[in-house]
Amino acid sequence: RRTGVAEAVLCGSKSAAQIAAILDRARAEGRRLLLTRLRLDQFRDLPDPCRADLDFDPVSATAILGAAAPDGAAKPGTLIVAAGTSDLGAATEAARTLGFHGYAAPMIVDVGVAGLWRLMARLEELRAARVLLVAAGMEGALFSVVAGLVEAPVIALPTSVGYGVAAQGQVALHSALASCAPGVLAVNIDNGFGAAAAAIKILRISVG
Amino acid sequence: RRTGVAEAVLCGSKSAAQIAAILDRARAEGRRLLLTRLRLDQFRDLPDPCRADLDFDPVSATAILGAAAPDGAAKPGTLIVAAGTSDLGAATEAARTLGFHGYAAPMIVDVGVAGLWRLMARLEELRAARVLLVAAGMEGALFSVVAGLVEAPVIALPTSVGYGVAAQGQVALHSALASCAPGVLAVNIDNGFGAAAAAIKILRISVG
Amino acid sequence: RRTGVAEAVLCGSKSAAQIAAILDRARAEGRRLLLTRLRLDQFRDLPDPCRADLDFDPVSATAILGAAAPDGAAKPGTLIVAAGTSDLGAATEAARTLGFHGYAAPMIVDVGVAGLWRLMARLEELRAARVLLVAAGMEGALFSVVAGLVEAPVIALPTSVGYGVAAQGQVALHSALASCAPGVLAVNIDNGFGAAAAAIKILRISVG
Amino acid sequence: RRTGVAEAVLCGSKSAAQIAAILDRARAEGRRLLLTRLRLDQFRDLPDPCRADLDFDPVSATAILGAAAPDGAAKPGTLIVAAGTSDLGAATEAARTLGFHGYAAPMIVDVGVAGLWRLMARLEELRAARVLLVAAGMEGALFSVVAGLVEAPVIALPTSVGYGVAAQGQVALHSALASCAPGVLAVNIDNGFGAAAAAIKILRISVG
Amino acid sequence: RRTGVAEAVLCGSKSAAQIAAILDRARAEGRRLLLTRLRLDQFRDLPDPCRADLDFDPVSATAILGAAAPDGAAKPGTLIVAAGTSDLGAATEAARTLGFHGYAAPMIVDVGVAGLWRLMARLEELRAARVLLVAAGMEGALFSVVAGLVEAPVIALPTSVGYGVAAQGQVALHSALASCAPGVLAVNIDNGFGAAAAAIKILRISVG
Amino acid sequence: RRTGVAEAVLCGSKSAAQIAAILDRARAEGRRLLLTRLRLDQFRDLPDPCRADLDFDPVSATAILGAAAPDGAAKPGTLIVAAGTSDLGAATEAARTLGFHGYAAPMIVDVGVAGLWRLMARLEELRAARVLLVAAGMEGALFSVVAGLVEAPVIALPTSVGYGVAAQGQVALHSALASCAPGVLAVNIDNGFGAAAAAIKILRISVG
Amino acid sequence: RRTGVAEAVLCGSKSAAQIAAILDRARAEGRRLLLTRLRLDQFRDLPDPCRADLDFDPVSATAILGAAAPDGAAKPGTLIVAAGTSDLGAATEAARTLGFHGYAAPMIVDVGVAGLWRLMARLEELRAARVLLVAAGMEGALFSVVAGLVEAPVIALPTSVGYGVAAQGQVALHSALASCAPGVLAVNIDNGFGAAAAAIKILRISVG
Amino acid sequence: RRTGVAEAVLCGSKSAAQIAAILDRARAEGRRLLLTRLRLDQFRDLPDPCRADLDFDPVSATAILGAAAPDGAAKPGTLIVAAGTSDLGAATEAARTLGFHGYAAPMIVDVGVAGLWRLMARLEELRAARVLLVAAGMEGALFSVVAGLVEAPVIALPTSVGYGVAAQGQVALHSALASCAPGVLAVNIDNGFGAAAAAIKILRISVG
Ligand SMILES: Nc1ncnc2c1ncn2[C@@H]1O[C@H](COP(=O)(O)O)[C@@H](O)[C@H]1O
Ligand SMILES: Nc1ncnc2c1ncn2[C@@H]1O[C@H](COP(=O)(O)O)[C@@H](O)[C@H]1O
Ligand SMILES: Nc1ncnc2c1ncn2[C@@H]1O[C@H](COP(=O)(O)O)[C@@H](O)[C@H]1O
Ligand SMILES: Nc1ncnc2c1ncn2[C@@H]1O[C@H](COP(=O)(O)O)[C@@H](O)[C@H]1O
Ligand SMILES: [Mg+2]
Ligand SMILES: [Mg+2]
Ligand SMILES: [Mg+2]
Ligand SMILES: [Mg+2]
Ligand SMILES: [Mg+2]
Ligand SMILES: [Mg+2]
Ligand SMILES: [Mg+2]
Ligand SMILES: [Mg+2]
Repeated sequence: RRTGVAEAVLCGSKSAAQIAAILDRARAEGRRLLLTRLRLDQFRDLPDPCRADLDFDPVSATAILGAAAPDGAAKPGTLIVAAGTSDLGAATEAARTLGFHGYAAPMIVDVGVAGLWRLMARLEELRAARVLLVAAGMEGALFSVVAGLVEAPVIALPTSVGYGVAAQGQVALHSALASCAPGVLAVNIDNGFGAAAAAIKILRISVG
Repeated sequence: RRTGVAEAVLCGSKSAAQIAAILDRARAEGRRLLLTRLRLDQFRDLPDPCRADLDFDPVSATAILGAAAPDGAAKPGTLIVAAGTSDLGAATEAARTLGFHGYAAPMIVDVGVAGLWRLMARLEELRAARVLLVAAGMEGALFSVVAGLVEAPVIALPTSVGYGVAAQGQVALHSALASCAPGVLAVNIDNGFGAAAAAIKILRISVG
Repeated sequence: RRTGVAEAVLCGSKSAAQIAAILDRARAEGRRLLLTRLRLDQFRDLPDPCRADLDFDPVSATAILGAAAPDGAAKPGTLIVAAGTSDLGAATEAARTLGFHGYAAPMIVDVGVAGLWRLMARLEELRAARVLLVAAGMEGALFSVVAGLVEAPVIALPTSVGYGVAAQGQVALHSALASCAPGVLAVNIDNGFGAAAAAIKILRISVG
Repeated sequence: RRTGVAEAVLCGSKSAAQIAAILDRARAEGRRLLLTRLRLDQFRDLPDPCRADLDFDPVSATAILGAAAPDGAAKPGTLIVAAGTSDLGAATEAARTLGFHGYAAPMIVDVGVAGLWRLMARLEELRAARVLLVAAGMEGALFSVVAGLVEAPVIALPTSVGYGVAAQGQVALHSALASCAPGVLAVNIDNGFGAAAAAIKILRISVG
Repeated sequence: RRTGVAEAVLCGSKSAAQIAAILDRARAEGRRLLLTRLRLDQFRDLPDPCRADLDFDPVSATAILGAAAPDGAAKPGTLIVAAGTSDLGAATEAARTLGFHGYAAPMIVDVGVAGLWRLMARLEELRAARVLLVAAGMEGALFSVVAGLVEAPVIALPTSVGYGVAAQGQVALHSALASCAPGVLAVNIDNGFGAAAAAIKILRISVG
Repeated sequence: RRTGVAEAVLCGSKSAAQIAAILDRARAEGRRLLLTRLRLDQFRDLPDPCRADLDFDPVSATAILGAAAPDGAAKPGTLIVAAGTSDLGAATEAARTLGFHGYAAPMIVDVGVAGLWRLMARLEELRAARVLLVAAGMEGALFSVVAGLVEAPVIALPTSVGYGVAAQGQVALHSALASCAPGVLAVNIDNGFGAAAAAIKILRISVG
Repeated sequence: RRTGVAEAVLCGSKSAAQIAAILDRARAEGRRLLLTRLRLDQFRDLPDPCRADLDFDPVSATAILGAAAPDGAAKPGTLIVAAGTSDLGAATEAARTLGFHGYAAPMIVDVGVAGLWRLMARLEELRAARVLLVAAGMEGALFSVVAGLVEAPVIALPTSVGYGVAAQGQVALHSALASCAPGVLAVNIDNGFGAAAAAIKILRISVG
Repeated sequence: RRTGVAEAVLCGSKSAAQIAAILDRARAEGRRLLLTRLRLDQFRDLPDPCRADLDFDPVSATAILGAAAPDGAAKPGTLIVAAGTSDLGAATEAARTLGFHGYAAPMIVDVGVAGLWRLMARLEELRAARVLLVAAGMEGALFSVVAGLVEAPVIALPTSVGYGVAAQGQVALHSALASCAPGVLAVNIDNGFGAAAAAIKILRISVG
C-alpha cells in the first residue's frame, strides 16, 4: 500500500456474502488480509471454507486470512496500556493489527486511575516504550496521567466502555482531546486499528 | 432559611435596577446578602450608595452586603483544590460562599494532572481534609486522581476553562460524572456557590 | 481499599469468561465481591459453580459473592427516595451497595412531583435522614423539591426512565445539576453504586 | 388575521431600516402593531419619528405602535407565574402580548421551587385561573409542581436563565416536555409571545 | 385526581411482575386503569388472569382495565390529525386516552404536507374543531400549516417517525417549538397521553 | 475554474491585511472577485483604495471587485423565495452570486407558512421557475410546502433566523433534510453562495 | 403526482398489516408501487400473495410492485459513485428509484479517498455524467473531492456507515454541508430515494 | 520538563494581573516562556515592562518571553500544511511552538481539496516530510487526502474556521477522527500547541 499500512476490511456494515466475495478474491491472489469489526454472528454466517481459513478472535472481533504475522522477529517499541478488562476489545484490535504488520504488542492491563499505585508500579515499563497506546473508557483520565509521566508520544484510544454521559465513549474521547498534558494524540472511539496504524507509522520514521 | 444555606442573589440575568431594589430591601431589613455572577459592568451600573456598601471581588464575580463572615472562628474541614490559575474564578466563588457562612476555605492551586508530582507533594494536606472541593476545567482528570488518593467525599467543581471540545466546561463535567473513582459528586459547571453549599451541608451533619 | 469504598466489578462490557475469572480469583483469596450491571443473560452464561455462589438480584442487576452484608448492625443515616416503581433499578443498586458495606438503606417509593401530597405526607421521615439519596427519571423535578424541604445533603441519582427528550436520563441529570435549590449533588445516570459510595463517605466523616 | 392572533414583528434579525419601513407602512394604514425582540440598540437606531410613536419596554424588549390595548375591559382568565426576577423578560413579553389583544395579565413572581412554601401560600390564586402561564429557567421544576396543584391547562414558558448545562434554557424546556404531571404544554424558550397567543386561543374557545 | 386527569401507568420500564401487582391492586379497589407504553412482549409476560381483563391495543401499545369509556355520550370538540399511517401509534394513544376520559376522538389520516391538496380538502372539518391535536414525524411541517389555517389552539404531537437527522422525532419536535405560526403548543415526542390530557383540560374550561 | 463556478473569498476568519493582499493580487491580474461574509467592521478596516474599488452590500455581507455581472443578458431560470424580511441576508448572498456569474435572480419575499394564502397567490410564478432556491429560518416548513407545489428541483437554503431550539438555523436545516416532499436538496445554514453555485450547475446542464 | 416523482411507501414504522393494506389498494387500482426501508423481517411477515407480487431486494431494503421499470429505454445522465461496499445499501436504493422512474443508474464502487488513485482512474466517466450522486459514509471526504473534479452538480448521499463520532452518518452529512467545494447538495442520511428523486428533477429540466 | 515539552501558559481565561505575575516569576528565574491564546486586548492590558519583553504575534495569538528559539540550527522533519489563509492562526501557533523548542516549521498554504491540483503540485514536498501537521477547517477533507498520499504520520489540526454545521470546528475534528485513511491522529480544535508538541515527541524518538 502506498500509505505503508495495509487497508483492513471493515466488516460491520457488510453482508456475509459481501465478505465472502472479498475473501475469495484475496485467496485467489494469495494475499493476507486483516478483517476488523467482524461480529460473531457475521463470522458464523460465512460459508464453511471461508471460516476454516480464518484465524478469528472474538474479543477483538478481528480475523486474519493467512499468517497472523509476517516472517521474522516482531519489531519492538510499542506498549499497549489498557485501563481495565472492559477495554480489552479495542486494545486487542490494536495488538492484532500490530502483529499482522510485524510489530510486537506487549500489553499492561488493569491500571485505571482509581488505583494510581497500580500504574505507578509499572513506571519503568511505561518509560521504556518508544510509543504508547493507551486504551481507556469512562472518563479517560488515564490518557493525561500517562502522558504526564513519560516523554514518548501517547496515542489515546478511547473505548466505548461507559454508561450515562459516558455512553459510547464520547467522554473518554473528549478527555483525550482536551488533555492538559501536552501532545496527546487521539483516534476515533474503539479504533484500535487506527491507533496501531499510527504507531507503526511513527516507529517506521525512526528507522528510515 | 429552611434548607440551612442562605439563598444567594444570582445576578447574571438581572438589570442594575433589579439588583439595587433587592439590595435596598435587604439593607432595610438589616440582612447580610451574598451576590453571585455579578459582572464588573453590572457592578459599575449600580447606584453609588449600593456600590459603597458592597465588598466586591472581580475574580469570583461575587459581592457581599454586610460582614464578609459571621462572628466567631471559621469552622475547619474543607479543602479547595484548584487545578490552575484559570480555575480561580469558580474556586474563589466557593471560598467566598464558605466564608460567608462561617467556614474556613484553605486553597491549593496549580496541581494539574500534567505535573502529577506537584499534586503528590501535597498528599498529606489532601488526606487531612474532611471534604474536598476540586475545581478543574479542560479534561477534568484531576477529579478522578484526587478521589483515588483520599477517603473523604470529593465534590467536583467543573470550570468553563477550555476550548474546542472542552469549551464551556462540558468535558470536565462529564469526566466528573463518569469518573472511575467511586463516589465523586458533581455540581453544575462554574457552580462554586453550589459546591460550597453542599460542603457546608456535609460538614454540618458531622456535628449534629 | 485506600479510598474506603470497595471497587465493584462493572460487568456490562465483560464476557462471561472474564467475569468468571474474576470471581474465581476472589473466591480463591476469600474476598467478598459486589458485581454491578450484570445482565440476566450474562448471569445465565456464567459457569454453574459461579452462579451458585452468587446472590443475584435481577431488579438492580447486581450480584454479591459472599455475605450480602458485613457482620454487625447496619449503620443508620441514609434515606433512599424513589420517584416511582420505574426508578427501582437504580435505587436498589444503591441499596445493595449500602448493605454490602454495612449501612442501612430504608426506601420511600412512589412520591413523584405530579402528586405532591404523597411526598408531603412523608416529610418527617425525610427530615430525619442525615443524607438523602433521591432517584428520579423523566424531568427530575423531585431533586429540587426534596432539597427545598430538608437541611441534609441531597445526592441526586438520575435514572434512565423516560422517552423523547428525556430518553436515557439526560433531562433528569441536567435538572439535578441546574437545580435552583442550593447544594444538590449529582452522580451519573443510573449510577446507584456511586450514589451509595458517596453517601458512605459522607456518613463516615461524621464519626471520624 | 385568519388565525385570530395578530402576527407580531420579530425584530431580532432585522435592520433598523427594515423595521422603520414596516412601521411606516403600518402607520400609513392606521394599523396597531406589536414588535418583539427589539433590542435597545435597535430601538435607538430607529429614526426619531418612529421612536416617538412607539411604547418601548426594555425589560420585555417589546414595543407597541398605537394603543397598548384595545378599548374595553381586559378579559380575565389568565395567570402568569414567574419563578424569579430573572424570568421577567419572557413573562412580560407574554403580558404585553395579552394586553395588546385585550386580555388581563396578572402576575405572581418569586415562587421558585427552592422555597416551596412561597408557592403554597398562593395556592388559591393559582386554582382560580382558567389557564396558567408559568415562566421558569434553570431546571424548570416549577412547571411540574404547578401542574400537579391545579386543574387548568398549564403553558410552560421556559426561559434562557441559567448557566452550565442549563445555558440558553434547554434544561427548562426539556423539563416541561418530560414533565411527569399530565398535560403540561410547552412553547419555545423565551417565547412569551407564543405562550400568550396560545392562552388567547384557549380562552376564546370557552366563549364561542 | 386533583389535576382532573387520571394518572396512567407508564409501563415501558416496569417488569411484568410490577405491572401485575399494580393491576391487582386496582382490581381489588374496583378502579379503572389506563396503561401506556405496554409493549407486546410485556403484555405476553403478564399472568393469564391479568391479560384476560385487559383491553390491549398493539398499535398504540395501550391497555385498559375496566370499561374503555365512562358511561354517557362522548364529549365532542377534539379533532386528531395524523400526517400518515406511521403516526398512528401516537395518535391512537391520544385517542384511547380521550375515550378513557369520556371524550370523542375523531381522526383524519394521511394529510401530509407533501400533498397539500389532501389537507385542503378537509378544511371545513379542521375549522369545526375546538382543539386540534396534530401528530406528525419527519420534519413536522404539518404543525405550522394547520396552525396557519385554523383559529383553535393546536397541540403538536411530534412522533418518532423518521431517520437520519430526524431519528427519534427531534426534528418534528423542534419544528413545533420553532413554528412561525403563533401559538402552537408542544408535548414530548410520542406523548399521545399528554396531548390528550392537555386537550381535556382545555375543553373542560370552556364549560365551567 | 475547473468546477465551472468561481471560488469566492470567504472573509469571516481573515484579517483586513489578508483580505487586502488578496484584492491586490486580483487587481494586478485583472480578475473580478466575489467576497462573501465580509462584515461591516472588516470592510471598514480595509485600506481606502481597496474599499473604493469594491461594490459592498451590507445586507448580504458581500462585496464585488470589478463588474457586478459579466457582459450580456442575465440567464433566466432561477427563482429565489424568501420566507420573510429576516431571511434577506442569505437570499441576497445567493442573488449576488447568481448575478456575478451572469444569471438573473428574481426574488419573492414574505410568503411564510403562517400565512399560506400569500404563498398560494404566487403559485404561477413558482411553477414557472426551472430551479427554486428557498430561504427560510425558524422551523423551515416552507421548504416542504414549496416542494409539494412544484415539479422543479428545490434547493433549501436554511437561515440562522430563530431563537431557542431554532437558534443558528439548525431546525430549518434539519427540516430541509427530513422533508417529506421528495427531492428537496439542502446546503449549509446561511450558505447563499453555495445555493447559487448549485443552481448555476443545474441550469448549465440543461443547455449542454 | 403533481411534483413529478411518485411518493414511495416508507415502511420502517409500519406494521405488516398496514403495508399489506396499502399493497392491496394499489393492486386493486392497477398502480405500480415502490416500497422503501422494508426490512427483511417485515417482508417475511407479509401475507403470501403480497410477497409473491413483490420484487424484493434485501441490499437496498426496497420492493417494487409491478414492473421494475416503465417501458422504453432508460434515460441516461446520472452516475452513482459509492465510496465502498458498505455504502451499497443507500446507493442501490437510489439506483432502484431511478430505474423505477425510467432512468439509467450506472454505478462506480470502491473509490474511497484513502486510495485516491482508484478514483483518478475513473475521471473520464465522472466528467461524462450530467448529474452525480455520491454515496459515502465515515468522514465523507469523497463529496468534496468529486465536486472538485467535475462541473456537473453533485448530490451528496451520506450513509450511516461509521462508528464512534461517525456513528449513524452524522459526520458524512456535515462534511457534505460544510464542503469547501462550491455547490455540493445534500440529502438526509441514507436517503437514496430522495437523492434519486432530486436527480430526476434535475435531469428533467434539461429537456423541458 | 519531565514530559520533554515545556508547558505553555494558556492565557485565555487569565486576567492581565495573573499573566503579569507569571511573567515576573519567569523573568526572575531567567526562564524562557511561551504564552498561547493571548488575545490582543489581554496583551494591551499588560503592564508596559511586560509588553516590552514579549515577542507578540497577533495572527497566532502567541507571545514569547526570551529568545524565540534555542541556540543552534533548527531540527528538520516537520511539514505544516494549511488548507487556506483562514487556517493560519492555528498553523502559526504550531509553527511558533516548534520554533520555541528548536524545530524547523516550513509551511505550505492554500492547498484545499476544492482545488486538488494545487495540492498534487506539491506532492514531492509532502512525501519528503517525516511528520506532517495538517491544518484545515470547514469539512476537513484535506486530512484524509493528505494521509492517502504519504507514508509518514499525519497529525490533523482541525481549525474553528467554518459556519453553520461546521461552526467552531466540530466537523473538521470529526472528519479527522473518522478518516478512512489509516492512522490519522487528531488533536483538539485550534490546538496548534498540542499538534507541535506531539510532532516534537515523534521526531525525538527517531534519534533516541
Ligand atoms: N417573539 C416571538 N416569538 C415567536 N414568533 C414571533 C415572535 N414575534 C413575532 N413572531 C412571529 O414570527 C413571524 C415573524 O415574521 P416577520 O416579522 O415577517 O419576520 C410572524 O409570524 C410573527 O407573528
Ligand atoms: N405515555 C405517557 N407519557 C407521559 N407520561 C405518562 C404516560 N403514561 C403515564 N404517564 C405518567 O407518568 C407517570 C408514571 O408514573 P408511574 O406509573 O408511577 O411510574 C404518571 O404521572 C403518569 O400519569
Ligand atoms: N459564503 C460561502 N460559503 C461557503 N463557501 C464559500 C463562501 N464563500 C467562499 N466560499 C468558498 O470557501 C473557500 C474559501 O477559500 P479561502 O478564501 O481560500 O479561505 C473557497 O473554496 C470559496 O469558494
Ligand atoms: N494552546 C494550548 N492548547 C492546549 N493546551 C495548552 C495550550 N497552551 C498551554 N497549554 C497547556 O495547558 C496547561 C495550562 O496550564 P495553566 O497555564 O497553568 O492554566 C498547561 O499544561 C499548558 O502546557
Ligand atoms: Mg477507563
Ligand atoms: Mg484542569
Ligand atoms: Mg421521575
Ligand atoms: Mg427557575
Ligand atoms: Mg410527517
Ligand atoms: Mg421561516
Ligand atoms: Mg466513505
Ligand atoms: Mg479547510
